[in-house]
Amino acid sequence: MADIRNHTREMLPEPTLRRLPWYLAYVNMLNARNVEFVSSTQIAKDLNVDASQIAKDLSCLNIKGKTRIGYEVKMLEQVLQDFLGFKEVHNAILIGVGSLGGALIQDSGLSRYGLNIVAGFDVNPTIIGTKICGIPIYNIADLEYKRKALKAEIAIIAVPVDQAQSVADLTVANGIKALWNFTPSRIKLSDNIVVQNTSIYSHLAVMYNRLDIQKQQSK
Amino acid sequence: MADIRNHTREMLPEPTLRRLPWYLAYVNMLNARNVEFVSSTQIAKDLNVDASQIAKDLSCLNIKGKTRIGYEVKMLEQVLQDFLGFKEVHNAILIGVGSLGGALIQDSGLSRYGLNIVAGFDVNPTIIGTKICGIPIYNIADLEYKRKALKAEIAIIAVPVDQAQSVADLTVANGIKALWNFTPSRIKLSDNIVVQNTSIYSHLAVMYNRLDIQKQQSK
Repeated sequence: MADIRNHTREMLPEPTLRRLPWYLAYVNMLNARNVEFVSSTQIAKDLNVDASQIAKDLSCLNIKGKTRIGYEVKMLEQVLQDFLGFKEVHNAILIGVGSLGGALIQDSGLSRYGLNIVAGFDVNPTIIGTKICGIPIYNIADLEYKRKALKAEIAIIAVPVDQAQSVADLTVANGIKALWNFTPSRIKLSDNIVVQNTSIYSHLAVMYNRLDIQKQQSK
Repeated sequence: MADIRNHTREMLPEPTLRRLPWYLAYVNMLNARNVEFVSSTQIAKDLNVDASQIAKDLSCLNIKGKTRIGYEVKMLEQVLQDFLGFKEVHNAILIGVGSLGGALIQDSGLSRYGLNIVAGFDVNPTIIGTKICGIPIYNIADLEYKRKALKAEIAIIAVPVDQAQSVADLTVANGIKALWNFTPSRIKLSDNIVVQNTSIYSHLAVMYNRLDIQKQQSK
């Protein structure tokens, strides 16, 4: 397959980047159903996103829709796939193999999105030296020595909140370029380190609040 | 413990609600270190959030800081805890016990944030009738019959993307009031149903893009 991504990758706004995977999941589904073309109006209808927003988002990619027909589904799938990097392999290490960390190791969905967890690190002697789903768990003290051999540039941070900053500093000192932070800590690092914060529990706060309000209103 | 939340719960903006759990995690940590008072300036410094933003966020709660001393840590912890509802038990069912769904069942962190997964539902005959971490997995066909007994108002949706809408409709028809949607599908439901979208894989798209750009810039 030809690499159509040999142009310089553009810096897209974060909200746009976060929507692109929705479009990809959607065209994956269309392709599986042998749909050949799709318009931004149809995508808008099915995904509940504004059509002009979709046209604007997709205009960032190297693809043009045809008047009255729309986008070729297979082509759009390919372009999104390539742009998003989900088909490339990104090695990652996981720091903190507790409840959430252990769950992430077991989520094979991550590998479908290009994330390859190559090792876990922890301080707990009862799990150091074991494997989870075939992935070895090492002592965090061996991070420096192991990280180079593992060729990982991404660290997933799933440690207790008060450990987050020191663990982040440690990984960066050892060559990590991007952090996927699952703790509620707002980690501070130099600007050349990429940080993505995913505090899934924050979404529960919103859900509980909205649920309570619905109950009050329906009384 | 007195319930200080017997006032009508306010509708807060989603960004504010998502930040409150950060403050809670932070004051949990301060409390564990026996810190008695904290100012919004100090919180701002440690969490990397604007101090005026913090003061504004906390003003939504029933708590006042003291001039030159700040907030009483124990009190702030209590107020945030109560407001966020993390100490209440919210029963939830999980639809789709695949890779991500299975991982969520095993994440005991959810119960620390008040989410009690009482059952999983799937269509896969090899897991129906089994238990994961003590949680029974039922046939999705039995949803109507089981849901009432389970007293669950929340459904976690972790099915394949093209099943998301139909599964969501099914749960709502059976009395579910809030959906935590882990699929990239933008589910459409009536306004009185609460939906929180958490597509963790979207964060990977942002991370890969930023990582590529850093690499281009450092060349």
